[in-house]
Amino acid sequence: MTTQQLHEQILLKKSFLCVGLDVDLTKIPEHLLETEDPIFEFNKVIIDATHDLAIAYKPNTAFYEAYGIKGWLSLQKTINYINEKYPDIFTIADAKRGDIGNTSSMYAKAFFEDLKFDSVTVAPYMGKDSVEPFLAFENKHTIMLALTSNEGAFDFQTLITNGTELYKQVLETSKTWKNSENLMYVVGATKAEYFTEIRKIVPDSFLLVPGVGAQGGSLSEVCKYGMNNKIGLLINSSRAIIYASKGTDFAEKAREEALKMQQEMEEIMSLKFKV
Amino acid sequence: MTTQQLHEQILLKKSFLCVGLDVDLTKIPEHLLETEDPIFEFNKVIIDATHDLAIAYKPNTAFYEAYGIKGWLSLQKTINYINEKYPDIFTIADAKRGDIGNTSSMYAKAFFEDLKFDSVTVAPYMGKDSVEPFLAFENKHTIMLALTSNEGAFDFQTLITNGTELYKQVLETSKTWKNSENLMYVVGATKAEYFTEIRKIVPDSFLLVPGVGAQGGSLSEVCKYGMNNKIGLLINSSRAIIYASKGTDFAEKAREEALKMQQEMEEIMSLKFKV
Repeated sequence: MTTQQLHEQILLKKSFLCVGLDVDLTKIPEHLLETEDPIFEFNKVIIDATHDLAIAYKPNTAFYEAYGIKGWLSLQKTINYINEKYPDIFTIADAKRGDIGNTSSMYAKAFFEDLKFDSVTVAPYMGKDSVEPFLAFENKHTIMLALTSNEGAFDFQTLITNGTELYKQVLETSKTWKNSENLMYVVGATKAEYFTEIRKIVPDSFLLVPGVGAQGGSLSEVCKYGMNNKIGLLINSSRAIIYASKGTDFAEKAREEALKMQQEMEEIMSLKFKV
Repeated sequence: MTTQQLHEQILLKKSFLCVGLDVDLTKIPEHLLETEDPIFEFNKVIIDATHDLAIAYKPNTAFYEAYGIKGWLSLQKTINYINEKYPDIFTIADAKRGDIGNTSSMYAKAFFEDLKFDSVTVAPYMGKDSVEPFLAFENKHTIMLALTSNEGAFDFQTLITNGTELYKQVLETSKTWKNSENLMYVVGATKAEYFTEIRKIVPDSFLLVPGVGAQGGSLSEVCKYGMNNKIGLLINSSRAIIYASKGTDFAEKAREEALKMQQEMEEIMSLKFKV
């Protein structure tokens, strides 16, 4: 999917909601545990219930790897289900990978070719040659960690180096990499006041924003400081939507939560763009 | 495995060699491609041929994920094979993971509990709460990227912050984390002159050292500056050993290469410790 197509989907659905599929077997409705593949069954129902309100789904690979082969199989079935049934949905493998060049190529192959995700998240610590192998894939997107939503973000990301914070240096430097137009960035919603500065460095890039909801970030604040002329935001919500209920009404409740967010997004878009 | 047991294995085998199992189907002997699980068959033969010369094996997860479910199955069979047949071997999942707290816990569960590795490599960018969930596992080890062997290491890791390089700050800060005694660090062999400074910060920690061989690092230089009183080094070699031959003699040639390294290590140990 191109960023232009992603933008069109946002306008069409009046939504820039990404639903995080971080499925923990201890948190899903009990009646699903009797099925052959509870994680996939859960995802399928959540996706069917929210696909017209969301423009992206983001399984975090950790939650699948924790269940070994069975988990990896659930991940594969989930991405196949989305790609076949909802081809206009943007898919994100939240994997936070990164390694030396030839190894990063293998990760890119895993997520772009084998699993057929539109995008994958990567970590910047190992620098240029750890990220460029991902960028080489046409119409695929590499979402690099910049300023994350967790407390530990302040350990290293905000250290001052060359007169500026490390995460800003990461943003600046990444713009010089080959095929950098295929980059997007992770910026946590819990740090809304940082978006103004970030937009000075990467005015046009899509930002994937976790941390709204359970982690305490504010949607309106993020939009106020982070939205660009083409929206440029993918706001992720995981737990607040997928675990809205643990009962047999979990799909309905998930839809209600997604709808609330979509409506808030529609209002923000109408105020800003009169759409 | 405890670090004490690891040290004992080093003394017993007169080796601190780690063999990297980065298996690429395009590089292994063709006759193996006809078997049901070529990656596992290859690993099994390599392990059997080198287990008395190496103290650790390190599959890089990227090479397994690139082959999807089949790859993950090969990884599982490989770690099970080592754990069952050679329980004294130290195992490293070279995965370079890291995420917010509850997600890092899932990764820790994946590698320590599901796959039963002794250790896993992690990336530091997301800070304390992205690493501490790994450190919580008793007798398991978390090997954090400090200064990597690739060119991109100079993009961010060596930036000056608070008057010192970022990678040194990473080392210093990590020592304050809960259960930091379970930390080891990745330091590239291509940067041997940095080891003196690193040893001032983490004198007692084990360092996992990639980059000897194919990437150009020197074993004797690394030992000169990086070895401590308990050796404290795990020197990794991947391609130089496992791809020593693409013929039917690949096991024999891999053993020859591993033996060369082990003998060099034995000599270094005898000069330094008179063992």
